[in-house]
Amino acid sequence: MKIKNLIAATYAPMHQDGSVNTNVIPEYHKFLVRNKISGVFMNGSTGDFASLSTDERKEITKAWSQNKSSDLYLIDHVGDPSLKVAMELAAHAADKVDAIAVLAPFYFRLNNIEKLVQYCKEVAACAPNLPFYYYHIPVLSGANLNMLDFLKVASKEIPNLEGIKFTNNNLIDFLHCKPLENGRFNLLFGFDEIFLSSLPLGADGWVGSTYNHMAPLYLKIKDLFESGKMAEAAELQRKAIRFVEILDGHGGFNGVGKGFMKTLGIDCGPSRFPHTTLGDDTYKDIRKQLDAIGLLEHLSD
Amino acid sequence: MKIKNLIAATYAPMHQDGSVNTNVIPEYHKFLVRNKISGVFMNGSTGDFASLSTDERKEITKAWSQNKSSDLYLIDHVGDPSLKVAMELAAHAADKVDAIAVLAPFYFRLNNIEKLVQYCKEVAACAPNLPFYYYHIPVLSGANLNMLDFLKVASKEIPNLEGIKFTNNNLIDFLHCKPLENGRFNLLFGFDEIFLSSLPLGADGWVGSTYNHMAPLYLKIKDLFESGKMAEAAELQRKAIRFVEILDGHGGFNGVGKGFMKTLGIDCGPSRFPHTTLGDDTYKDIRKQLDAIGLLEHLSD
Amino acid sequence: MKIKNLIAATYAPMHQDGSVNTNVIPEYHKFLVRNKISGVFMNGSTGDFASLSTDERKEITKAWSQNKSSDLYLIDHVGDPSLKVAMELAAHAADKVDAIAVLAPFYFRLNNIEKLVQYCKEVAACAPNLPFYYYHIPVLSGANLNMLDFLKVASKEIPNLEGIKFTNNNLIDFLHCKPLENGRFNLLFGFDEIFLSSLPLGADGWVGSTYNHMAPLYLKIKDLFESGKMAEAAELQRKAIRFVEILDGHGGFNGVGKGFMKTLGIDCGPSRFPHTTLGDDTYKDIRKQLDAIGLLEHLSD
Amino acid sequence: MKIKNLIAATYAPMHQDGSVNTNVIPEYHKFLVRNKISGVFMNGSTGDFASLSTDERKEITKAWSQNKSSDLYLIDHVGDPSLKVAMELAAHAADKVDAIAVLAPFYFRLNNIEKLVQYCKEVAACAPNLPFYYYHIPVLSGANLNMLDFLKVASKEIPNLEGIKFTNNNLIDFLHCKPLENGRFNLLFGFDEIFLSSLPLGADGWVGSTYNHMAPLYLKIKDLFESGKMAEAAELQRKAIRFVEILDGHGGFNGVGKGFMKTLGIDCGPSRFPHTTLGDDTYKDIRKQLDAIGLLEHLSD
Repeated sequence: MKIKNLIAATYAPMHQDGSVNTNVIPEYHKFLVRNKISGVFMNGSTGDFASLSTDERKEITKAWSQNKSSDLYLIDHVGDPSLKVAMELAAHAADKVDAIAVLAPFYFRLNNIEKLVQYCKEVAACAPNLPFYYYHIPVLSGANLNMLDFLKVASKEIPNLEGIKFTNNNLIDFLHCKPLENGRFNLLFGFDEIFLSSLPLGADGWVGSTYNHMAPLYLKIKDLFESGKMAEAAELQRKAIRFVEILDGHGGFNGVGKGFMKTLGIDCGPSRFPHTTLGDDTYKDIRKQLDAIGLLEHLSD
Repeated sequence: MKIKNLIAATYAPMHQDGSVNTNVIPEYHKFLVRNKISGVFMNGSTGDFASLSTDERKEITKAWSQNKSSDLYLIDHVGDPSLKVAMELAAHAADKVDAIAVLAPFYFRLNNIEKLVQYCKEVAACAPNLPFYYYHIPVLSGANLNMLDFLKVASKEIPNLEGIKFTNNNLIDFLHCKPLENGRFNLLFGFDEIFLSSLPLGADGWVGSTYNHMAPLYLKIKDLFESGKMAEAAELQRKAIRFVEILDGHGGFNGVGKGFMKTLGIDCGPSRFPHTTLGDDTYKDIRKQLDAIGLLEHLSD
Repeated sequence: MKIKNLIAATYAPMHQDGSVNTNVIPEYHKFLVRNKISGVFMNGSTGDFASLSTDERKEITKAWSQNKSSDLYLIDHVGDPSLKVAMELAAHAADKVDAIAVLAPFYFRLNNIEKLVQYCKEVAACAPNLPFYYYHIPVLSGANLNMLDFLKVASKEIPNLEGIKFTNNNLIDFLHCKPLENGRFNLLFGFDEIFLSSLPLGADGWVGSTYNHMAPLYLKIKDLFESGKMAEAAELQRKAIRFVEILDGHGGFNGVGKGFMKTLGIDCGPSRFPHTTLGDDTYKDIRKQLDAIGLLEHLSD
Repeated sequence: MKIKNLIAATYAPMHQDGSVNTNVIPEYHKFLVRNKISGVFMNGSTGDFASLSTDERKEITKAWSQNKSSDLYLIDHVGDPSLKVAMELAAHAADKVDAIAVLAPFYFRLNNIEKLVQYCKEVAACAPNLPFYYYHIPVLSGANLNMLDFLKVASKEIPNLEGIKFTNNNLIDFLHCKPLENGRFNLLFGFDEIFLSSLPLGADGWVGSTYNHMAPLYLKIKDLFESGKMAEAAELQRKAIRFVEILDGHGGFNGVGKGFMKTLGIDCGPSRFPHTTLGDDTYKDIRKQLDAIGLLEHLSD
């Protein structure tokens, strides 16, 4: 089974003191399912993996797995600059989630496909019964490699290779990967702001942070696109972008977007350094700005 | 009138000795019209403006203007690192073409909107009765500025501002510019390889080099998109990309693409430094490769 | 006391199976002292901190501290993308070493001084009785900030701020930092290949990986410089660069340099991903190449 | 004869209306000689070549050549994005100056040595009796190529190859180029702000814009260095940097530095786009700031 449709890159819920708060996860799970989200991408960039300790990452994995249900697919991001740590996290996840993913090590940066395949292969082998995704996010990992080339090599080396979380605006590469080996790879498009542009290219699965906040809006864009109503679809895509820009303008999207979850009923708590945590009052202002552009009605609830 | 549909970024035709050969232009003109091209963007990057002398650029402008007809819109790119030279070229073009365009000066690179507007304003004023386009191509000009911000400022300062040749993969910026001032700006999308992704965003005019070679293919992509046949549209877009990759693999797309014109019946002659010029034999091989992926039938003729 | 002269960025010694091998450290300690090295910078880029687990980093810190002596100053790098982890490591080091250092978080990259000072302040406070160094290495951390500005702000916020490990080729910034507050900050220059160029700028402390391998050579460069024998100094600096280039040419300097330690009598074992580990035979070839340029006599022993 | 010592990258003098004003050149010539400048690098970045027309560049060349004297070596920069134009300028300079130079074409950027050598070879052949310099300034030309590799290839291809104007902070590359072929190439160091760091590397010729303004200061740095007074040399180098920073803070160094010449008795007139032209009053303020750091006494006069 290939997981499709909207997958939320989930936040790492925290207590007011900044410690991990897994109590929120059962509620978070229901919220996502209610908003027609088909899966969770936990411990990713949105989930602040790089600001968590290894133990905290495991705690989050465990909590989601304890709430596992057939209607929400769980992908655990286990990437780390240390291959050793990534392998440890993969082994930990092996019996808890539906799939794992890794990004490229981001301190000593990789600049060739072979090293990347080697890294992925060793991690994938620690959870051999789970589908394995490569998390392609060159703007953060610095590994700006061609995914068509990667898939061609990795396909032979990694038996459980399932696909790519493709967070890059190189649509040419995306288009080339799509039909490879009769389209057997699952390419989850990861650039929310150009969701609409991914549709004619055949994208059918998406991972992103804003699917936490605005799932209904994206499903509407998809409907409009499929009915040929492009102008209306574009208008909604613009609103989705404005959401990111408005939140970003209040101190950075990552932290502000996390705090915004509370206004949707899921209290994810404060953000970790270097992200911004805002007070409740500011969110009233933000919601006013969103109201002014007609966005409130499109939010998840 | 807003010019729409496919606009060819034309090559600078040359004699075997490398001097400019305007004799080809009447034939080139007919070829483009026959292939349903609606306009010409001359003296651009495809047209090797940076490798021509000022006089040679004028010679090309003059030749196209002498072949002017109502069914082919002429845009003359007059940008230059020297504002003085750009103004001279704009004044020269003022009574010869339908519109002018400039890119940002590319030696001392611009990093603020105000300087860019100042540059554009002075050039636009030298052809005050012609529509003026800003040629946004940050990968070559180094001016990686936000076009929404540019339009907001430039709109007040440049009476004949018509729009942007938008050669960038920042689709967010493109999407934001589209509805500005009730959509009054003409945004000509300039990234051929993601033509398909521009369609749901409302693009309705395109400038590019491969519209010289494959106009029928792009018109077909547009038709398929409009009929909701996305998989077929994506398949053709992939072929268009492969065309660029195959030619590029023979020594660089700019030079090889110019030489390919001869195989379509328009002999544009050799390329200038630093581009590659190939012999006729190599084009036989290239056409074989194109045939293998079913591209020959989609070429202009 | 300001630590001066050559400080070795030490390797993380490992067993053949890739686990940390602290047994080597007593011998490593003697080797460095014997070669007139004044200090150790452990758990840095050379020490592969990013490829170690948090526990392994602590193990290395502990081992060096158990071998502590007055003639070798110990700096422990405790930086991490997670502030929480960096604080944990700083607290662990607080009673074990002579000073700590951190680089900027390198996943969510910092682009302003205030965030950087905030990060440093929180870590420095976990080892309040130790001198604190900021480890400036923008090419790896991505935090390309001005150090003069940093020192001006950090000086007021971080009571135990001691200086900077300055691994950058912005010599202008280095020159400006030098006299600040009557020269009270200790600026440890960290770009071995331009050691000679740092001398007229007043550098008097250096941290680098090649001080493991060639301490006598650098001390000789310093002597020659001080006697005004610039041509001879330059000739030795060129040899030092060639050492790096020759090793780098065999699969990357980090891994090959680590393996080279065995030929000097300190068996640091294999490298971790993504670095290269070579067999003993290859080092024979490398030593031949070094011999050919007259470098063997300048190596540490 | 290898030209050595300080070479001024001269400004393009202009009338108040922005047209080229060669009347100033005889006086400019005397000013430079009086301040112990050994040569002129005309039509370079400081000389705004990219903002001049081809005819204006020739006019400047002609004017300097009419004031030729044995005590001021004339290097004419003839580089241009168009090889054709560069060749035309080289031929024009062939009987007028002592040497020519070219940078790499900067629109279609070069990324390999072979293309660069080909470009240089064709230009050098247009002035076969003049020494030829490659003007290495990757931050503006985008051609970030290794100069050691360039010299090795170019040495065989370009009979009149004399050396490099080396405007880059890759001191490793500089150090490697120095002894090549028994030191036969003339490497003119072009990064004024790190003049002092070039001294132990064996630099003995320098080209830069601030040698227009502060020749006595740089000669003093050299003297201090040669007498082993490094702290004093560093203090003066810092002042030289502050000069650039202070002027730059008033709207950009290029334009402000040009206007500053008038306060030294050489009225170079206004700057061209995109550079800033300031009024006389502002220069009074600037001189006050320079006075405050004890710089006035070190200026050329």
